[in-house]
Amino acid sequence: MRNYPVRLILNLVLLFSFALAAGHSNAQPASSEEKAIKSVLTAQVAAWNRGDIPAFMESYENSPETTFIGKTMAKGYAPILERYKKSYSTHEQMGTLTFHDIEVRLLPAATGATEYAIVTGQFHLDRSTHGEAGKDDGIFSLIWHKTPTGWKIILDHTS
Amino acid sequence: MRNYPVRLILNLVLLFSFALAAGHSNAQPASSEEKAIKSVLTAQVAAWNRGDIPAFMESYENSPETTFIGKTMAKGYAPILERYKKSYSTHEQMGTLTFHDIEVRLLPAATGATEYAIVTGQFHLDRSTHGEAGKDDGIFSLIWHKTPTGWKIILDHTS
Repeated sequence: MRNYPVRLILNLVLLFSFALAAGHSNAQPASSEEKAIKSVLTAQVAAWNRGDIPAFMESYENSPETTFIGKTMAKGYAPILERYKKSYSTHEQMGTLTFHDIEVRLLPAATGATEYAIVTGQFHLDRSTHGEAGKDDGIFSLIWHKTPTGWKIILDHTS
Repeated sequence: MRNYPVRLILNLVLLFSFALAAGHSNAQPASSEEKAIKSVLTAQVAAWNRGDIPAFMESYENSPETTFIGKTMAKGYAPILERYKKSYSTHEQMGTLTFHDIEVRLLPAATGATEYAIVTGQFHLDRSTHGEAGKDDGIFSLIWHKTPTGWKIILDHTS
């Protein structure tokens, strides 16, 4: 009976350490996935701001399922690329893009692996010339898929 | 040597049978998940059309992370419920809801399990009275999560 409280305390300390370790190992990959997604967004903005739509499009999954929703819906990588090229036909019409209020929500599976994520945020375009796309400010939600070539957007809804 | 081709053929037949069975077992749950999501949408429309916003809200995941994007963003189940109640304060303002062009895209994990899905579609409200919400037609994207209590919406972007 004398040893009992000591063992209990030792067990509690062990349990607490395991809980801390588990919490730590869960948090680390989550944070690195978030960083990976944010770095794709940063590269995407840089591509836009040098007027490079094909490089901007590299953030989208090259799939016929990839979907863009603006005023209407465009389905498939090629139609989305064409839509961007048509809506923003010059570097001046593209202007300078900034994102703000970016929130990343990872969507882990029951196994703990994270293959999908949601990003919400706002955009602002600083420009003096407009083409077919008239909006300079808006809100967006993006669904991301972790592929062998990195995190890619599979759905972009911008309004 | 005489038995070799027979064994080879038998092995090929077995392999082909397994491939068929695997294909079959993959296809079945996919289709049943799509049916499950569509039945939640059907129940949601029925709840709306009898003026029952709390029942309509049961299709959303009861979580502070659940997000609704309209003109602005609302985060959390309770704020989204309040927003619906404020925007549609009477049964007449709610009118009759119909969905069309519904497309379900399941998002399977590498393990084959499907815990997330995207639904895109259009809505129409048939009504004679308007409250704070002015739109009678729009396009939406919904992100779904398979929970122990069924498929639930975790992100609704309507524009």
